[in-house]
Amino acid sequence: MAPWAERLAGVRGVLLDISGVLYDSGAGGGTAIAGSVEAVARLKGSRLKVRFCTNESQKSRAELVGQLRRLGFDISEREVTAPAPAACQILKERGLRPYLLIHDGVRSEFDQIDTSNPNCVVIADAGESFSYQNMNNAFQVLMELENPVLISLGKGRYYKETSGLMLDVGPYMKALEYACGIKAEVVGKPSPEFFKSALQAIGVEAHQEPSSKMALESLAAVDMVLNWSAVNVHHGPHSLKTTP
Amino acid sequence: MAPWAERLAGVRGVLLDISGVLYDSGAGGGTAIAGSVEAVARLKGSRLKVRFCTNESQKSRAELVGQLRRLGFDISEREVTAPAPAACQILKERGLRPYLLIHDGVRSEFDQIDTSNPNCVVIADAGESFSYQNMNNAFQVLMELENPVLISLGKGRYYKETSGLMLDVGPYMKALEYACGIKAEVVGKPSPEFFKSALQAIGVEAHQEPSSKMALESLAAVDMVLNWSAVNVHHGPHSLKTTP
Repeated sequence: MAPWAERLAGVRGVLLDISGVLYDSGAGGGTAIAGSVEAVARLKGSRLKVRFCTNESQKSRAELVGQLRRLGFDISEREVTAPAPAACQILKERGLRPYLLIHDGVRSEFDQIDTSNPNCVVIADAGESFSYQNMNNAFQVLMELENPVLISLGKGRYYKETSGLMLDVGPYMKALEYACGIKAEVVGKPSPEFFKSALQAIGVEAHQEPSSKMALESLAAVDMVLNWSAVNVHHGPHSLKTTP
Repeated sequence: MAPWAERLAGVRGVLLDISGVLYDSGAGGGTAIAGSVEAVARLKGSRLKVRFCTNESQKSRAELVGQLRRLGFDISEREVTAPAPAACQILKERGLRPYLLIHDGVRSEFDQIDTSNPNCVVIADAGESFSYQNMNNAFQVLMELENPVLISLGKGRYYKETSGLMLDVGPYMKALEYACGIKAEVVGKPSPEFFKSALQAIGVEAHQEPSSKMALESLAAVDMVLNWSAVNVHHGPHSLKTTP
Protein backbone atom coordinates (compact mmCIF):
# COMPACT_ATOMS: atom_id res chain seq x y z
CA MET A 1 0.00 0.00 0.00
CA ALA A 2 1.40 3.40 -0.92
CA PRO A 3 2.30 5.67 2.03
CA TRP A 4 -0.34 8.24 1.09
CA ALA A 5 -3.10 5.68 1.18
CA GLU A 6 -1.91 4.42 4.58
CA ARG A 7 -2.00 7.91 5.96
CA LEU A 8 -5.47 8.54 4.61
CA ALA A 9 -6.86 5.33 6.10
CA GLY A 10 -9.42 6.40 8.69
CA VAL A 11 -9.61 9.98 7.46
CA ARG A 12 -13.27 10.93 7.00
CA GLY A 13 -13.09 14.65 6.47
CA VAL A 14 -10.78 17.42 5.32
CA LEU A 15 -10.63 21.01 6.54
CA LEU A 16 -9.25 23.31 3.88
CA ASP A 17 -7.72 26.70 4.56
CA ILE A 18 -8.46 29.31 1.89
CA SER A 19 -6.02 32.24 1.75
CA GLY A 20 -2.53 31.07 0.78
CA VAL A 21 -3.84 27.53 0.20
CA LEU A 22 -6.57 27.83 -2.43
CA TYR A 23 -5.65 31.31 -3.63
CA ASP A 24 -3.32 34.26 -3.00
CA SER A 25 -5.28 37.41 -2.20
CA GLY A 26 -4.37 40.67 -3.85
CA ALA A 27 -5.49 43.34 -6.29
CA GLY A 28 -8.28 42.33 -8.66
CA GLY A 29 -9.52 39.45 -6.48
CA GLY A 30 -6.23 37.55 -6.26
CA THR A 31 -5.19 34.42 -8.13
CA ALA A 32 -5.98 30.73 -7.69
CA ILE A 33 -3.00 28.59 -6.68
CA ALA A 34 -2.12 26.09 -9.42
CA GLY A 35 -4.06 22.83 -9.10
CA SER A 36 -6.27 23.99 -6.22
CA VAL A 37 -9.52 24.37 -8.19
CA GLU A 38 -9.11 20.78 -9.44
CA ALA A 39 -8.14 19.47 -5.98
CA VAL A 40 -11.29 20.94 -4.41
CA ALA A 41 -13.46 19.44 -7.15
CA ARG A 42 -11.83 16.03 -6.69
CA LEU A 43 -12.17 16.14 -2.89
CA LYS A 44 -15.84 17.09 -3.12
CA GLY A 45 -16.39 14.19 -5.53
CA SER A 46 -14.67 11.75 -3.12
CA ARG A 47 -16.05 9.96 -0.04
CA LEU A 48 -14.43 12.65 2.16
CA LYS A 49 -16.42 15.37 3.88
CA VAL A 50 -14.99 18.78 3.03
CA ARG A 51 -15.23 22.10 4.86
CA PHE A 52 -13.48 25.40 4.29
CA CYS A 53 -12.01 26.81 7.45
CA THR A 54 -10.60 30.32 7.15
CA ASN A 55 -9.33 33.14 9.35
CA GLU A 56 -10.29 35.62 6.64
CA SER A 57 -11.55 38.67 8.48
CA GLN A 58 -11.29 41.46 5.93
CA LYS A 59 -14.42 40.40 4.09
CA SER A 60 -17.78 38.77 4.76
CA ARG A 61 -18.33 35.14 3.82
CA ALA A 62 -20.63 36.26 0.99
CA GLU A 63 -17.91 38.41 -0.52
CA LEU A 64 -15.22 35.76 -0.04
CA VAL A 65 -17.29 33.01 -1.64
CA GLY A 66 -18.23 35.26 -4.57
CA GLN A 67 -14.56 35.93 -5.19
CA LEU A 68 -13.64 32.23 -5.01
CA ARG A 69 -16.45 31.25 -7.37
CA ARG A 70 -15.19 33.82 -9.88
CA LEU A 71 -11.80 32.06 -9.68
CA GLY A 72 -13.52 28.76 -10.57
CA PHE A 73 -13.97 27.11 -7.15
CA ASP A 74 -17.08 25.05 -6.40
CA ILE A 75 -17.88 26.55 -2.98
CA SER A 76 -20.94 27.95 -1.20
CA GLU A 77 -21.31 30.23 1.82
CA ARG A 78 -22.73 27.46 4.02
CA GLU A 79 -19.54 25.40 3.55
CA VAL A 80 -17.35 28.07 5.16
CA THR A 81 -16.36 28.32 8.84
CA ALA A 82 -15.08 31.87 9.52
CA PRO A 83 -14.23 33.78 12.72
CA ALA A 84 -16.65 36.72 12.41
CA PRO A 85 -19.85 34.61 12.69
CA ALA A 86 -18.21 32.60 15.51
CA ALA A 87 -17.40 35.85 17.33
CA CYS A 88 -20.97 37.11 16.90
CA GLN A 89 -22.27 33.99 18.61
CA ILE A 90 -19.91 34.53 21.57
CA LEU A 91 -20.90 38.22 21.82
CA LYS A 92 -24.59 37.31 21.94
CA GLU A 93 -24.12 34.48 24.44
CA ARG A 94 -22.16 36.67 26.84
CA GLY A 95 -24.04 39.93 26.38
CA LEU A 96 -20.95 41.70 25.05
CA ARG A 97 -21.14 44.98 23.14
CA PRO A 98 -17.92 45.38 21.14
CA TYR A 99 -15.84 48.29 20.00
CA LEU A 100 -15.07 46.95 16.51
CA LEU A 101 -11.50 47.39 15.30
CA ILE A 102 -12.17 45.70 11.97
CA HIS A 103 -12.02 46.15 8.21
CA ASP A 104 -15.06 47.78 6.64
CA GLY A 105 -15.38 44.74 4.36
CA VAL A 106 -16.42 42.47 7.26
CA ARG A 107 -18.63 44.98 9.10
CA SER A 108 -21.84 43.54 7.62
CA GLU A 109 -21.25 40.29 9.58
CA PHE A 110 -21.80 42.36 12.78
CA ASP A 111 -25.05 44.04 11.61
CA GLN A 112 -27.10 42.35 14.34
CA ILE A 113 -24.67 43.22 17.15
CA ASP A 114 -25.25 46.06 19.64
CA THR A 115 -22.12 48.25 19.65
CA SER A 116 -23.41 51.01 21.95
CA ASN A 117 -21.49 51.74 25.17
CA PRO A 118 -18.83 49.05 24.47
CA ASN A 119 -17.83 46.55 27.14
CA CYS A 120 -15.26 44.66 25.05
CA VAL A 121 -13.07 45.01 21.95
CA VAL A 122 -13.17 42.81 18.86
CA ILE A 123 -10.04 43.05 16.73
CA ALA A 124 -9.61 41.59 13.26
CA ASP A 125 -7.33 42.01 10.28
CA ALA A 126 -8.26 45.69 9.85
CA GLY A 127 -5.57 46.67 7.32
CA GLU A 128 -5.49 50.43 6.81
CA SER A 129 -8.01 50.81 9.65
CA PHE A 130 -5.18 49.98 12.08
CA SER A 131 -4.59 53.72 12.52
CA TYR A 132 -3.09 55.12 15.71
CA GLN A 133 -6.44 56.75 16.48
CA ASN A 134 -8.41 53.50 16.14
CA MET A 135 -5.83 51.53 18.13
CA ASN A 136 -5.92 54.17 20.87
CA ASN A 137 -9.73 54.10 20.93
CA ALA A 138 -9.65 50.32 21.44
CA PHE A 139 -6.97 50.73 24.12
CA GLN A 140 -9.00 53.36 25.99
CA VAL A 141 -12.14 51.19 25.90
CA LEU A 142 -10.17 48.28 27.42
CA MET A 143 -8.50 50.44 30.08
CA GLU A 144 -11.87 51.69 31.32
CA LEU A 145 -13.21 48.17 31.90
CA GLU A 146 -12.87 46.40 35.22
CA ASN A 147 -12.36 43.06 33.43
CA PRO A 148 -11.09 43.95 29.94
CA VAL A 149 -12.21 41.48 27.24
CA LEU A 150 -10.28 41.46 23.98
CA ILE A 151 -11.53 39.06 21.29
CA SER A 152 -9.16 38.56 18.36
CA LEU A 153 -10.26 37.00 15.06
CA GLY A 154 -7.16 34.88 14.57
CA LYS A 155 -3.61 35.65 15.64
CA GLY A 156 -1.73 35.37 12.35
CA ARG A 157 1.59 37.21 12.08
CA TYR A 158 1.35 38.19 8.43
CA TYR A 159 0.06 37.03 5.10
CA LYS A 160 1.15 37.27 1.52
CA GLU A 161 -0.56 39.46 -0.99
CA THR A 162 0.43 39.62 -4.61
CA SER A 163 2.08 42.97 -3.69
CA GLY A 164 4.12 41.53 -0.78
CA LEU A 165 3.92 40.58 2.90
CA MET A 166 1.24 42.29 4.98
CA LEU A 167 0.86 42.52 8.77
CA ASP A 168 -2.05 40.40 10.00
CA VAL A 169 -4.13 40.84 13.16
CA GLY A 170 -1.70 39.00 15.49
CA PRO A 171 0.84 41.82 15.90
CA TYR A 172 -1.93 44.31 16.75
CA MET A 173 -3.48 41.83 19.18
CA LYS A 174 -0.07 41.55 20.88
CA ALA A 175 0.19 45.35 21.00
CA LEU A 176 -3.10 45.68 22.91
CA GLU A 177 -2.25 42.72 25.16
CA TYR A 178 1.02 44.39 26.15
CA ALA A 179 -0.49 47.86 26.53
CA CYS A 180 -3.26 46.63 28.86
CA GLY A 181 -1.48 43.69 30.52
CA ILE A 182 -4.17 41.27 29.35
CA LYS A 183 -4.53 38.11 27.25
CA ALA A 184 -6.80 38.07 24.21
CA GLU A 185 -9.36 35.35 23.48
CA VAL A 186 -8.60 34.06 20.00
CA VAL A 187 -11.57 33.11 17.81
CA GLY A 188 -10.44 31.30 14.68
CA LYS A 189 -7.47 29.08 13.95
CA PRO A 190 -5.58 27.72 15.84
CA SER A 191 -8.28 27.65 18.55
CA PRO A 192 -9.49 24.06 19.16
CA GLU A 193 -13.09 25.33 19.56
CA PHE A 194 -12.96 26.76 16.08
CA PHE A 195 -11.80 23.49 14.50
CA LYS A 196 -14.42 21.62 16.52
CA SER A 197 -17.22 23.83 15.19
CA ALA A 198 -15.97 23.21 11.62
CA LEU A 199 -15.96 19.46 12.23
CA GLN A 200 -19.44 19.55 13.77
CA ALA A 201 -20.70 21.21 10.62
CA ILE A 202 -19.67 18.17 8.56
CA GLY A 203 -20.61 15.61 11.21
CA VAL A 204 -17.07 14.38 11.77
CA GLU A 205 -15.46 13.89 15.17
CA ALA A 206 -11.80 14.52 15.88
CA HIS A 207 -9.91 11.38 16.96
CA GLN A 208 -7.57 13.59 18.90
CA GLU A 209 -7.86 17.12 20.25
CA PRO A 210 -8.14 19.39 17.21
CA SER A 211 -5.11 21.59 16.85
CA SER A 212 -3.14 23.45 14.25
CA LYS A 213 -1.13 20.21 13.82
CA MET A 214 -4.33 18.55 12.69
CA ALA A 215 -4.91 21.33 10.16
CA LEU A 216 -1.43 20.71 8.82
CA GLU A 217 -2.21 17.01 8.54
CA SER A 218 -5.28 17.91 6.54
CA LEU A 219 -3.23 20.04 4.21
CA ALA A 220 -0.75 17.18 3.84
CA ALA A 221 -3.69 14.99 2.89
CA VAL A 222 -4.76 17.48 0.25
CA ASP A 223 -1.26 17.50 -1.10
CA MET A 224 -1.50 13.73 -1.36
CA VAL A 225 -4.80 13.99 -3.15
CA LEU A 226 -3.18 16.33 -5.61
CA ASN A 227 -0.31 13.91 -6.17
CA TRP A 228 -2.72 11.04 -6.45
CA SER A 229 -4.72 12.97 -8.96
CA ALA A 230 -1.61 13.52 -11.01
CA VAL A 231 -0.53 9.87 -11.15
CA ASN A 232 -4.06 8.42 -11.02
CA VAL A 233 -3.14 5.28 -9.08
CA HIS A 234 -5.66 2.96 -7.35
CA HIS A 235 -4.69 0.89 -4.33
CA GLY A 236 -7.53 -1.10 -2.83
CA PRO A 237 -10.34 -0.15 -0.45
CA HIS A 238 -8.64 2.83 1.19
CA SER A 239 -7.98 4.69 -2.04
CA LEU A 240 -9.77 7.90 -2.71
CA LYS A 241 -12.27 7.50 -5.45
CA THR A 242 -13.39 10.60 -7.22
CA THR A 243 -16.43 8.86 -8.67
CA PRO A 244 -18.37 5.98 -7.13
CA MET B 1 17.24 60.74 62.30
CA ALA B 2 14.13 60.94 60.17
CA PRO B 3 13.51 58.02 57.78
CA TRP B 4 13.93 60.22 54.69
CA ALA B 5 17.33 61.40 55.80
CA GLU B 6 18.43 57.80 56.49
CA ARG B 7 17.42 56.80 53.03
CA LEU B 8 19.26 59.70 51.44
CA ALA B 9 22.49 58.91 53.32
CA GLY B 10 25.02 57.91 50.68
CA VAL B 11 22.96 59.26 47.79
CA ARG B 12 25.14 61.49 45.64
CA GLY B 13 22.99 62.01 42.57
CA VAL B 14 19.40 62.00 41.40
CA LEU B 15 18.05 61.02 38.01
CA LEU B 16 14.78 62.72 37.28
CA ASP B 17 12.22 61.54 34.78
CA ILE B 18 10.40 64.32 32.94
CA SER B 19 7.04 63.36 31.43
CA GLY B 20 4.53 62.44 34.13
CA VAL B 21 7.02 63.46 36.84
CA LEU B 22 7.88 67.10 36.15
CA TYR B 23 4.98 67.81 33.83
CA ASP B 24 2.00 66.24 32.05
CA SER B 25 2.31 66.62 28.30
CA GLY B 26 -0.67 67.72 26.25
CA ALA B 27 -2.16 70.49 24.17
CA GLY B 28 -0.49 73.91 24.55
CA GLY B 29 2.77 72.48 25.92
CA GLY B 30 1.27 70.62 28.88
CA THR B 31 1.24 71.64 32.54
CA ALA B 32 3.85 71.49 35.32
CA ILE B 33 3.02 69.04 38.11
CA ALA B 34 2.43 70.90 41.38
CA GLY B 35 5.65 71.46 43.34
CA SER B 36 7.96 70.09 40.65
CA VAL B 37 9.45 73.42 39.52
CA GLU B 38 10.38 74.17 43.14
CA ALA B 39 11.70 70.64 43.74
CA VAL B 40 14.06 70.85 40.76
CA ALA B 41 15.33 74.26 41.92
CA ARG B 42 15.92 72.90 45.43
CA LEU B 43 17.70 69.76 44.16
CA LYS B 44 19.95 71.81 41.91
CA GLY B 45 20.81 74.05 44.85
CA SER B 46 21.68 71.03 47.04
CA ARG B 47 24.87 68.94 47.23
CA LEU B 48 23.21 66.34 44.94
CA LYS B 49 24.14 65.93 41.29
CA VAL B 50 21.03 66.12 39.13
CA ARG B 51 20.36 64.79 35.64
CA PHE B 52 17.18 64.55 33.63
CA CYS B 53 16.65 61.13 32.13
CA THR B 54 13.73 60.83 29.76
CA ASN B 55 12.28 58.42 27.22
CA GLU B 56 10.67 61.34 25.41
CA SER B 57 10.92 60.48 21.75
CA GLN B 58 8.28 62.65 20.11
CA LYS B 59 10.45 65.77 20.26
CA SER B 60 14.10 66.78 20.11
CA ARG B 61 15.92 67.72 23.31
CA ALA B 62 15.95 71.36 22.14
CA GLU B 63 12.19 71.42 21.79
CA LEU B 64 11.63 69.58 25.08
CA VAL B 65 13.90 71.89 27.06
CA GLY B 66 12.31 74.97 25.49
CA GLN B 67 8.91 73.73 26.59
CA LEU B 68 10.08 72.99 30.14
CA ARG B 69 11.75 76.38 30.47
CA ARG B 70 8.50 78.05 29.45
CA LEU B 71 6.82 76.12 32.30
CA GLY B 72 9.38 77.62 34.72
CA PHE B 73 11.96 74.80 35.02
CA ASP B 74 15.67 75.60 35.34
CA ILE B 75 16.97 73.11 32.79
CA SER B 76 19.36 73.12 29.84
CA GLU B 77 19.76 70.76 26.89
CA ARG B 78 23.13 69.44 28.11
CA GLU B 79 21.51 68.19 31.34
CA VAL B 80 19.18 65.80 29.49
CA THR B 81 19.83 62.13 28.67
CA ALA B 82 17.39 61.07 25.93
CA PRO B 83 17.14 57.93 23.77
CA ALA B 84 17.41 59.50 20.28
CA PRO B 85 21.02 60.75 20.72
CA ALA B 86 21.92 57.41 22.38
CA ALA B 87 20.45 55.54 19.41
CA CYS B 88 22.40 57.73 16.95
CA GLN B 89 25.63 56.75 18.67
CA ILE B 90 24.77 53.04 18.35
CA LEU B 91 23.82 53.45 14.68
CA LYS B 92 27.15 55.13 13.93
CA GLU B 93 29.21 52.61 15.89
CA ARG B 94 27.61 49.64 14.15
CA GLY B 95 27.26 51.08 10.63
CA LEU B 96 23.47 50.79 10.76
CA ARG B 97 21.22 52.66 8.35
CA PRO B 98 17.73 52.85 9.87
CA TYR B 99 14.23 52.92 8.50
CA LEU B 100 12.88 55.52 10.94
CA LEU B 101 9.41 54.84 12.34
CA ILE B 102 9.38 58.00 14.44
CA HIS B 103 7.49 61.20 15.14
CA ASP B 104 8.37 64.14 12.89
CA GLY B 105 9.17 66.17 16.01
CA VAL B 106 12.27 64.07 16.77
CA ARG B 107 13.49 63.65 13.19
CA SER B 108 16.05 66.47 13.51
CA GLU B 109 18.01 64.35 16.04
CA PHE B 110 18.73 61.93 13.15
CA ASP B 111 19.91 64.59 10.68
CA GLN B 112 23.43 63.16 10.57
CA ILE B 113 22.31 59.55 10.04
CA ASP B 114 22.38 57.78 6.67
CA THR B 115 18.92 56.31 6.06
CA SER B 116 19.49 55.05 2.50
CA ASN B 117 19.00 51.35 1.77
CA PRO B 118 17.99 50.53 5.39
CA ASN B 119 19.57 47.62 7.27
CA CYS B 120 17.65 48.11 10.53
CA VAL B 121 14.53 49.73 11.97
CA VAL B 122 14.40 52.39 14.69
CA ILE B 123 11.00 52.70 16.34
CA ALA B 124 9.98 55.47 18.72
CA ASP B 125 6.79 56.95 20.11
CA ALA B 126 5.52 57.91 16.64
CA GLY B 127 1.94 58.85 17.59
CA GLU B 128 -0.21 59.37 14.50
CA SER B 129 2.72 58.18 12.35
CA PHE B 130 1.96 54.63 13.58
CA SER B 131 -0.17 54.11 10.46
CA TYR B 132 -0.68 50.64 8.99
CA GLN B 133 1.38 51.67 5.98
CA ASN B 134 4.36 52.82 8.08
CA MET B 135 4.21 49.75 10.32
CA ASN B 136 4.08 47.51 7.24
CA ASN B 137 7.06 49.34 5.72
CA ALA B 138 9.07 48.71 8.89
CA PHE B 139 7.93 45.06 8.92
CA GLN B 140 8.96 44.53 5.30
CA VAL B 141 12.41 46.08 5.91
CA LEU B 142 12.95 43.68 8.84
CA MET B 143 11.71 40.62 6.92
CA GLU B 144 14.19 41.25 4.12
CA LEU B 145 17.19 41.28 6.48
CA GLU B 146 19.15 38.15 7.26
CA ASN B 147 19.67 39.33 10.84
CA PRO B 148 16.84 41.76 11.54
CA VAL B 149 17.79 44.58 13.96
CA LEU B 150 14.97 46.47 15.66
CA ILE B 151 15.99 49.33 17.96
CA SER B 152 13.23 50.70 20.16
CA LEU B 153 13.47 54.05 21.95
CA GLY B 154 11.95 52.87 25.20
CA LYS B 155 9.27 50.22 25.71
CA GLY B 156 6.61 52.13 27.64
CA ARG B 157 3.06 50.81 27.47
CA TYR B 158 1.25 54.13 27.51
CA TYR B 159 1.43 57.63 28.89
CA LYS B 160 -0.99 60.22 30.10
CA GLU B 161 -1.79 63.32 28.16
CA THR B 162 -4.12 65.99 29.42
CA SER B 163 -6.66 64.51 26.95
CA GLY B 164 -6.31 60.92 28.24
CA LEU B 165 -4.17 57.77 27.99
CA MET B 166 -2.10 57.35 24.83
CA LEU B 167 -0.37 54.25 23.45
CA ASP B 168 3.41 54.53 23.75
CA VAL B 169 6.10 52.84 21.65
CA GLY B 170 6.11 49.55 23.62
CA PRO B 171 2.95 48.03 22.11
CA TYR B 172 4.19 48.76 18.59
CA MET B 173 7.60 47.31 19.42
CA LYS B 174 5.83 44.14 20.63
CA ALA B 175 3.80 44.05 17.39
CA LEU B 176 6.95 44.02 15.23
CA GLU B 177 8.68 41.55 17.56
CA TYR B 178 5.77 39.12 17.18
CA ALA B 179 5.37 39.67 13.43
CA CYS B 180 9.06 38.96 12.74
CA GLY B 181 9.81 36.53 15.57
CA ILE B 182 12.61 38.78 16.89
CA LYS B 183 13.56 40.67 20.06
CA ALA B 184 14.07 44.43 19.99
CA GLU B 185 17.06 46.22 21.49
CA VAL B 186 15.68 48.83 23.87
CA VAL B 187 17.52 52.16 24.06
CA GLY B 188 16.24 54.26 26.94
CA LYS B 189 14.75 53.34 30.28
CA PRO B 190 14.74 50.71 31.71
CA SER B 191 17.96 49.68 29.94
CA PRO B 192 20.89 49.59 32.41
CA GLU B 193 23.22 51.07 29.72
CA PHE B 194 20.95 54.08 29.46
CA PHE B 195 21.01 54.77 33.21
CA LYS B 196 24.79 54.22 33.25
CA SER B 197 25.32 56.84 30.54
CA ALA B 198 23.18 59.29 32.52
CA LEU B 199 25.25 58.62 35.65
CA GLN B 200 28.51 58.99 33.73
CA ALA B 201 27.37 62.42 32.61
CA ILE B 202 27.22 63.58 36.24
CA GLY B 203 30.29 61.62 37.40
CA VAL B 204 28.38 59.34 39.73
CA GLU B 205 28.76 55.57 39.90
CA ALA B 206 25.92 53.18 40.65
CA HIS B 207 26.43 51.20 43.87
CA GLN B 208 24.35 48.46 42.38
CA GLU B 209 23.38 47.53 38.83
CA PRO B 210 21.24 50.40 37.57
CA SER B 211 17.67 49.31 36.99
CA SER B 212 14.20 50.68 36.87
CA LYS B 213 14.06 49.96 40.62
CA MET B 214 16.85 52.48 41.05
CA ALA B 215 14.87 55.03 39.08
CA LEU B 216 11.96 54.45 41.41
CA GLU B 217 14.24 54.96 44.39
CA SER B 218 15.31 58.27 42.89
CA LEU B 219 11.74 59.32 42.49
CA ALA B 220 11.06 58.33 46.09
CA ALA B 221 13.98 60.56 47.04
CA VAL B 222 12.47 63.45 45.12
CA ASP B 223 9.20 62.88 46.86
CA MET B 224 11.09 63.16 50.16
CA VAL B 225 12.73 66.37 49.03
CA LEU B 226 9.32 67.75 48.23
CA ASN B 227 8.01 66.78 51.68
CA TRP B 228 11.10 68.16 53.31
CA SER B 229 10.70 71.35 51.35
CA ALA B 230 7.15 71.65 52.59
CA VAL B 231 7.91 71.24 56.29
CA ASN B 232 11.38 72.78 56.09
CA VAL B 233 12.99 70.54 58.69
CA HIS B 234 16.77 70.20 59.23
CA HIS B 235 18.26 67.01 60.63
CA GLY B 236 22.02 67.05 60.84
CA PRO B 237 24.74 66.39 58.27
CA HIS B 238 22.68 64.24 55.92
CA SER B 239 19.97 66.82 55.40
CA LEU B 240 19.61 68.42 52.04
CA LYS B 241 20.61 72.04 52.14
CA THR B 242 19.29 74.28 49.43
CA THR B 243 21.93 76.92 50.11
CA PRO B 244 25.44 76.34 51.41
